[in-house]
Order: sequence, then structure tokens, then C-alpha cells
Amino acid sequence: MPDTINRQFRLKRRPNGRVTAADFDFVEASVPTPGPGEVLVRVLYISMEPIYRLWMTDTDHDLPPVKIGDVVRGVGLGRVVASNAEGWNPGDLAGGMFGWQDYAVVPPPGIARLSRIREHGSVPLTTMLGACGSTGFCAYFGLLDIGKPKQGETVVVSAAAGAVGSVAGQIAKLKGCRVVGIAGGAAKCRLLTDELGFDAAVDYKRSDWREALAAATPNGIDVNFENVGGEIMGAVIDRMNHGGRVVLCGLITGYNDGERREGHLQALGNFIPIFTHRLTVQGFVFTDFAPRFGEAVSQLSQWVAAGQIKPRETVVDGLEHTPEALNRLFAGNNIGKLLVKVSEP
Amino acid sequence: MPDTINRQFRLKRRPNGRVTAADFDFVEASVPTPGPGEVLVRVLYISMEPIYRLWMTDTDHDLPPVKIGDVVRGVGLGRVVASNAEGWNPGDLAGGMFGWQDYAVVPPPGIARLSRIREHGSVPLTTMLGACGSTGFCAYFGLLDIGKPKQGETVVVSAAAGAVGSVAGQIAKLKGCRVVGIAGGAAKCRLLTDELGFDAAVDYKRSDWREALAAATPNGIDVNFENVGGEIMGAVIDRMNHGGRVVLCGLITGYNDGERREGHLQALGNFIPIFTHRLTVQGFVFTDFAPRFGEAVSQLSQWVAAGQIKPRETVVDGLEHTPEALNRLFAGNNIGKLLVKVSEP
Repeated sequence: MPDTINRQFRLKRRPNGRVTAADFDFVEASVPTPGPGEVLVRVLYISMEPIYRLWMTDTDHDLPPVKIGDVVRGVGLGRVVASNAEGWNPGDLAGGMFGWQDYAVVPPPGIARLSRIREHGSVPLTTMLGACGSTGFCAYFGLLDIGKPKQGETVVVSAAAGAVGSVAGQIAKLKGCRVVGIAGGAAKCRLLTDELGFDAAVDYKRSDWREALAAATPNGIDVNFENVGGEIMGAVIDRMNHGGRVVLCGLITGYNDGERREGHLQALGNFIPIFTHRLTVQGFVFTDFAPRFGEAVSQLSQWVAAGQIKPRETVVDGLEHTPEALNRLFAGNNIGKLLVKVSEP
Repeated sequence: MPDTINRQFRLKRRPNGRVTAADFDFVEASVPTPGPGEVLVRVLYISMEPIYRLWMTDTDHDLPPVKIGDVVRGVGLGRVVASNAEGWNPGDLAGGMFGWQDYAVVPPPGIARLSRIREHGSVPLTTMLGACGSTGFCAYFGLLDIGKPKQGETVVVSAAAGAVGSVAGQIAKLKGCRVVGIAGGAAKCRLLTDELGFDAAVDYKRSDWREALAAATPNGIDVNFENVGGEIMGAVIDRMNHGGRVVLCGLITGYNDGERREGHLQALGNFIPIFTHRLTVQGFVFTDFAPRFGEAVSQLSQWVAAGQIKPRETVVDGLEHTPEALNRLFAGNNIGKLLVKVSEP
């Protein structure tokens, strides 16, 4: 018998700092019925992404804020359970902005077909949200199209043991770069150098991290793939070579705790070396590259299948744990892609 | 009878904040004799540029620091008085890094020939250091090559009544953009709109400057030609459209008074909107474009001769006033290009 209950996290108030249970209403709604041209999706996994925290603030970022009372926005992977849309059938796998809930009704332009990709790539479902999904897209387009690394250049990746950073660093290695990852703790650093092929890792929790960064980048830094912002980004930028590129993929240091000014969250940094070292700092959101998602999925799944990119994933079981899962992204104790499993695939 | 005395400003100590007389030794040396292949230049004008202040700090910027005891670095325009270099003759006009002094000995690769440009452009000498010299180059390459403004786009220029800003804004008008200048005080704002053709001017000394900026940029901002940094830059960046370009031509807010961290001067700003609005922030120094100086001089002098760019210049008379002249660049009470006249042309 099909479910009749659709559990949903609705935004109750704008969080202050890290999210808490009190910021949400966790409600039981009815499973919705798809209207004409729509599809009903059973959510299987929710991809946990730092930008969700920005969407809960009251200012526009890449998307308008989630409204108070609305289901919290989130990217997911699901299976079609009912369809009024041509070409979509029950059982199809789909990716899309399904939200923090069990079931979502979406019009087909809002969902992506995943079945075909999976068939010939033999990529696990979780990896389709990770290294071969939006996470991989951030790494692929951010590094290659914005960072433009050349063979022999030095690439520094922050949050390098995280979802995007671990993939970006592995792609940079495939492109013949010297790759240095910044991560917190010896275990993460070992993962980078011993398992993922990074040339060096800098543990930012050690008091000598600045010296370690200098030692790991004897020829300076050409590309900074930045996920964090703040003091460490500043130290990387100070060591960048003339003409270097900073790929602003994320700035998680500012999402929760950033000082607010005129209503805007802040991740402060020094602009003087950007000027004097002639750097290019460019922000992007992976959806800017939507017309080329096919290319990215094809390349990423080949690399994964060939073992040239090793995906790392951490799965939190149960929709009810989504808020804590979000906080894990900011606590610095997560490795690889973080997913919430909502139901059995 | 030729001079035998060469007055020089030598750096005595690293300044703290704005420069003072006590930061320099103002000495009388002998006029030097050019060695084989060298040229002796009588300095006529020194171009006053904010970056001189950065060169007095103890960290590398686009050039290494001026050493304690060395003649202070500065761009000048002079006349050859003795030459051991082929192709250079007494009477030739030359531009180069002559320093804060009466006479400089330089090898020809370090100087630029100005006579020919001047002959067919009928451009005044002062303009050759201003709108048709390094100042114009900053505006020309910064706006066109880094900012890439398209017809109909909105360009915001800070320090718009200053040397580079006033030229950059006029070039943006020639390219069919809506041009908004930010300047301090009603007189400067009137200059921008009534004489230099800007579409609007925002007086940052008024308490309602944020509202004025919003009113002047109803379609958002596509290009920010930035000379200042700090709070006003932050407000401009917050209003930028997706895909906008920030041309980092200068950050004078940080050169004197910036908080130091790990020895680096700072001009702090928020990186989050760079990420979420998908902006490109790019630093440059005009010498990066040296192979194209000929193109720039030719185009700029045509615009000046045709009255399409109106150069503004302020001349301070006397080498001895150079330190105060430098401070004027940071005091916000200078209009157009600031020059120190060292001797009669």
C-alpha cells in the first residue's frame, strides 16, 4: 500500500548561526497528487550542500530566499511513482530540486533523467548525486572552465576532503598539476595524499599551517579552488603568482557565522593582493553550465568507472536528521559527499 | 651653466599611515654622469600615483619595496640632457621611472620616447603623463580589456573625479554605456555630470549615498571600475548583476590606513556576493599591457584632440612638495591628474 504521509521540513524562522530543530516545522502532510504534465517523485537521497544555509537567509543569493513556511529547498535524487508527463514513467530515476521531504511534485523541466546515465556507467546511486552529480559539476566546471589549470601549475584546494574539493583535486591531478589540499586533521590529510593522489596536504588545525602551506607550494600558487573563505583563503591568495585564478566555489566560513552588514552575510577577505598580484577571482554556480551537464556526466562517470576519480560518500540515514546533516558540513568533520537517505532505493 | 645639484627624496623609514616629511631624507646629491649606453634625464614632471604608497611598505606588491636609503620610486616625464645611448639626443622628451629627484640616469630600455607622439597629437606635456600616459593606460586597458563593457550596460566608477576614474568614465560613455561616478562633494559630482558627460554622480559624503547609488543604477551594475575599495565598493558589488566584472585598478582605502595582518596591508571586502552573483574580480597593473601602449596612446590622443575626452590636471609646483602631493591623493580633495612640476619644460 503506498504511503499517504509526506514528511516535510518547512522553514519556521530565519536561523541565527547554525540551524537548530526550532528553525523548522517537521510536519506530516499528505502525499500530493501530480497535476496535468507533472510527476510525483519519491525522494531517495537528499544531497547536502552548504548553500542551503544561504538560501535560508533573507537576502537573494543565486536564488531568492526560501520563504517562511515553505518546504526547505534541496537537491535530491528520487524515483517517479506517478506521472502525468509524457516520457516519464513510474520507476524512472530523476534528479531535481525536490526539497527536504519524502515526496515532491514537479514539472518535467525541473527534473533530470538519470536512468540512462546510470545504465552505461554502472555508477552507484549515491555517486550520481556526488562525483557524477551536482558536486562533480561544481568541481568539473569550476576547476576546468574558471580555474583553467595548465600542466605543471600548482593548484590549492580548500576543504579538500569535502565533496567538491576531493573531486576537484583529483581532476587537477588528471590534468598534470601539482595539487595541494587543505583539510582539518591528520586523518583527512592522509586520505588526500595516500588515497586520492594529492601531492601534499596542509592540516589547518596545526599551528604551523602557514609554514606547511609555504613548504608545499615552493613555486607559488596558480589556481586556488576555494570552498571556505576567511583567513586560510587569505594566506593562499598571498602566495599566488601573477595571473593566478581564484575559483570561488563556496565560502562556507561566512554562511552561518559571518558578520552581517546591511543585511548581507559576509566572508571578508583582503582585495589588495588580488590587485597587486593581478589575480582573477570568479564566482560561479554549477547551474550556469547546465547546457554542458551531459558532457560533464559522461566524463566524470568514465573517470569514476576507470578508478581515476575515487568518490567518497557519507550517508546519514533518515529524513528527520537533515538539519543535523547540514550542520555537519560546517563542523569540519565530514569526509566526501554527505547525503541523507530518505528511503530505500 | 648646468645644474650641479640633484635634489632627491630618499626613503628614510617605512611610513606609518600617511607619509610625513620625517619619512624621507631630502638630500642634495651631485648630478650623475651617464655611463656607457645610458641617458641623463632632467625631470620635468612627476606623475603622482597612489601605488607609490604601497611601494614604501615592506612587502612585495607589483614591484619589490623601495629600499631604505633609496630614491623614492616614481613615474616621470623628462628631457634628455646628455646621452651615451644610440638614438637618444639632448632635447628628446622621455617618460620613465625617474624617481622623486631632479635628475635621473637610466638605460634606454627603461624610458619611453614621447617626442613623436606629441608631435602629431598636439597634446600638452602634462596630458602625456595623464590621460595620454600611464593614467590613460590604466583607464583604457582596465575598462576595455578587463571590464569589457557592452553598449547599454551600466558602469560605476569610484574616485570618478580622480585621474584614472575621470578618463575611465569618459571612455565608458564613448562605448555607449550608462556611466555613474562616485565622488566626494557636490563640486566633483557637478564636474562629472555637467562637464565630463557622466549620466549620474553619487556623492559619498552624503548620508543618503546608498539610496542615491540605487536610484542611479535602476538596472543594476554590470561593470565596477574600482579605485578605492572598502565600504563603497561593497555597496557597488552588492548591486552587481550576474556575470558582472569588477576591474581592480586601485584600492586606495587600504594603502595608508589598512589594518595589517601578517605584514600585509588590507583592504577588506565581502567575497560572498562575488560568489553568488557570479562576478569576476580582476586585478591588473597597466604595465601588463606594455606591448599595446602604442595603440593606447594613439587612441587616447585622438580622443583628447577631438574633445571626446577632457583631461583634468592639477599641478603642484616644486619637487620639495612631493610628499604632500602624495597625501592629496588620499585626502579626497584632488580633481583629475595630480602632477608635481620639477622644472620648467
